[in-house]
Amino acid sequence: MTVPAPDRTTDRSGLRPDGPPSEVVIARTVADVQETVRRAARAGTSVITRGAGSGLAGGAVAVAGAIVLDLSGLNRILSIDPVDGTARVEPGVITAELDRSAGEHGLFYAPDPGSVGISTVGGNIATNAGGLRGAKYGVTRDAVLSVEVVLADGSLVHLGRPTIKGVTGYDLAGLIVGSEGTLGIVVGATVRLLPKPPQVATASASFATLEDAAAAVAAVAVSGARPAVLEILDGATLAAIDAATGSALREHGDALLIAQTDGFGAEQEIAVVAAALAEGATGVEWTTDPAEAHRLLTARREALPAIERIGRPLIEDIAVPRSRLAEAIGRIRQVAAAREVPIFVFGHAGDGNLHPIIVAEPDTDGAIPEVAHRAADDIFALALELGGTVTAEHGVGRLKRDWARRELGADAVRLHEKVKALFDPQGILNPGSGF
Amino acid sequence: MTVPAPDRTTDRSGLRPDGPPSEVVIARTVADVQETVRRAARAGTSVITRGAGSGLAGGAVAVAGAIVLDLSGLNRILSIDPVDGTARVEPGVITAELDRSAGEHGLFYAPDPGSVGISTVGGNIATNAGGLRGAKYGVTRDAVLSVEVVLADGSLVHLGRPTIKGVTGYDLAGLIVGSEGTLGIVVGATVRLLPKPPQVATASASFATLEDAAAAVAAVAVSGARPAVLEILDGATLAAIDAATGSALREHGDALLIAQTDGFGAEQEIAVVAAALAEGATGVEWTTDPAEAHRLLTARREALPAIERIGRPLIEDIAVPRSRLAEAIGRIRQVAAAREVPIFVFGHAGDGNLHPIIVAEPDTDGAIPEVAHRAADDIFALALELGGTVTAEHGVGRLKRDWARRELGADAVRLHEKVKALFDPQGILNPGSGF
Repeated sequence: MTVPAPDRTTDRSGLRPDGPPSEVVIARTVADVQETVRRAARAGTSVITRGAGSGLAGGAVAVAGAIVLDLSGLNRILSIDPVDGTARVEPGVITAELDRSAGEHGLFYAPDPGSVGISTVGGNIATNAGGLRGAKYGVTRDAVLSVEVVLADGSLVHLGRPTIKGVTGYDLAGLIVGSEGTLGIVVGATVRLLPKPPQVATASASFATLEDAAAAVAAVAVSGARPAVLEILDGATLAAIDAATGSALREHGDALLIAQTDGFGAEQEIAVVAAALAEGATGVEWTTDPAEAHRLLTARREALPAIERIGRPLIEDIAVPRSRLAEAIGRIRQVAAAREVPIFVFGHAGDGNLHPIIVAEPDTDGAIPEVAHRAADDIFALALELGGTVTAEHGVGRLKRDWARRELGADAVRLHEKVKALFDPQGILNPGSGF
Repeated sequence: MTVPAPDRTTDRSGLRPDGPPSEVVIARTVADVQETVRRAARAGTSVITRGAGSGLAGGAVAVAGAIVLDLSGLNRILSIDPVDGTARVEPGVITAELDRSAGEHGLFYAPDPGSVGISTVGGNIATNAGGLRGAKYGVTRDAVLSVEVVLADGSLVHLGRPTIKGVTGYDLAGLIVGSEGTLGIVVGATVRLLPKPPQVATASASFATLEDAAAAVAAVAVSGARPAVLEILDGATLAAIDAATGSALREHGDALLIAQTDGFGAEQEIAVVAAALAEGATGVEWTTDPAEAHRLLTARREALPAIERIGRPLIEDIAVPRSRLAEAIGRIRQVAAAREVPIFVFGHAGDGNLHPIIVAEPDTDGAIPEVAHRAADDIFALALELGGTVTAEHGVGRLKRDWARRELGADAVRLHEKVKALFDPQGILNPGSGF
């Protein structure tokens, strides 16, 4: 039996490259990356850098004739310093592996995208990945202290510093984070680790209506509590989970909220959260018992697998101000009705970050059909109308380029174009991705 | 009696301008700022933007012939949204006033530089100001979601977004934060507010030696606790406080640590911190009583005033990895001995951020004498040798320009110069400040 070679020309966006790349380079050293970029610069060839290929926005999809540069083999954790609270890593380290290693020192790595078990720290840096704990602990940019970057001419530059604080010079390390491989190639980073909270507490609450759930999110926001996790699942998602697992979540209402608090006062804090949730809920449960917590989190864990059983998902990623959550979800339902396509909504309510999942029959060639993309367009327009963003944590990639430009506005786009030209005058770094 | 006009040509760095500015503009509107910058761009005149003038690095010191642009009159809090957890502000708002207004909604504004009662949010954004709570809550950049910026051609651009999360485009808002008025002029911002912790607990511990105190900082780092505040004061500082207030702090040891925890489990958490401190301490106290906490914090509050009674201070601002704190303070003492100038050290040990205060007789013209600057040079060299930074939270300004370039290295400086040229091709925005 032969194992098929991994497809290094695409990612999990469902987007196909416009043609075959000229070459796939599996880098083993920083020198490999520099040599590849120098060669590409001389020839004017594009370089599409990738980690695990778990991206959802098409940021690591090849273009015809380009060099695909795979950094997943640069996967060592070089050091962890518990006193400094830092780790030095290569970009191909799997994010969960960094978190696990930090755990051996009583620490944790805060950014926890849904893909944490398969995605790389370098890919997370490229997209400024978020995650469930973002509401309390921030996103990847908040964890990155410094980066080693191979620039478009193949030179290696160190940006940022290993100390927790520092204001010497411009925040060019922060500029590289989230630049989706279009400004430079991250070949190393020093990231921050935090003390592992001694206690975690979990609550789950059902709501008759979405509006009740959104009101509960607002109530939590002003309760004085600061949950590390505050997730919302809509009725369509609950019904999908019920169908997949035999649960009866949808019976209890049209929306579910799941909250976690952590720290020394996690139990007192979850009680405050639960009280805020209880006002409009049809039922609330909370626990500090890990097994019980695991049960309460089942719905969140099963949401995407359950939806994926129904059809091929287009996973979207908007954010709106928390005060506009009910309106956003209500209007997404109108989009589903008007476009006659099922849309499931769950997401990180604490950040105002929703993941509408559009499910439609694939085209005959297996691609996501046009109707799904049209529904996504409606959702992007809605996000901007509500003062939000077209991508909260997945990135712009190739899929949201036009919408990103609309969100930024002409003046900001001009600045972006100048910054891109400054870092990459030939335009060889991941062309077609980003703003 | 006439009140002297405020001196808008300098800041608290003690640095004097090289000549009189051509004009001082007190902006009342964003249009005033745009009109001033357009006029400056046409004439090729420099613009030195200032808020309260509380900076310590000379970042708001005028240059001969320049226009001084004072934004302290743009001082309205435009809105606070407790559900979104955001505030929209003009740049001249006093930072403590924003925090106080947030408090009316059960929220707080996390960045709390020592100057919080006199400095402006705009000035804090320009320098990416830190503060006591930085160890847990980060610095100004972590609080800024979006900025309105007047560029060097007088145009107004919006960068960032009002949502908590968002990855559309490059982090140009983050690039503006900490750029010390050299890339653009911040005329508005949306900042994040956090739930006010329900409980605060405070601990204070004395140590026979600096090494014991540094070991205690390391012990706290791996204790599982995450103090919001962890301050260190050295023996010289304690002696100065004793002389000023009649206390007997120096008798108890050569170093003092003060810690605060906050949140729902502040009391349990301070007990863990106190246990970590106790191992090497000559004495530890802790409390959840606000009056007692006020007493324990007296030393920290009195440190700078006590030192200022002795002579004119040059306030420095390095950071080193937390694991190098003892070495840093020990070596600063050697600098004091070799240069024969008193140096007092206190700072934010949780961030590795030390403020060595060099005190020397002013020159006959009232300026800080050469010996103080030479001692500062020794300290900067030391910070770099230990893997640290020459400025953790005060900024580069005019005082640390050469050292900033040394810290960044030639390759990063070239990138900085290109970014500066991109935003400000004529070089009219705060020339002489920054990297």
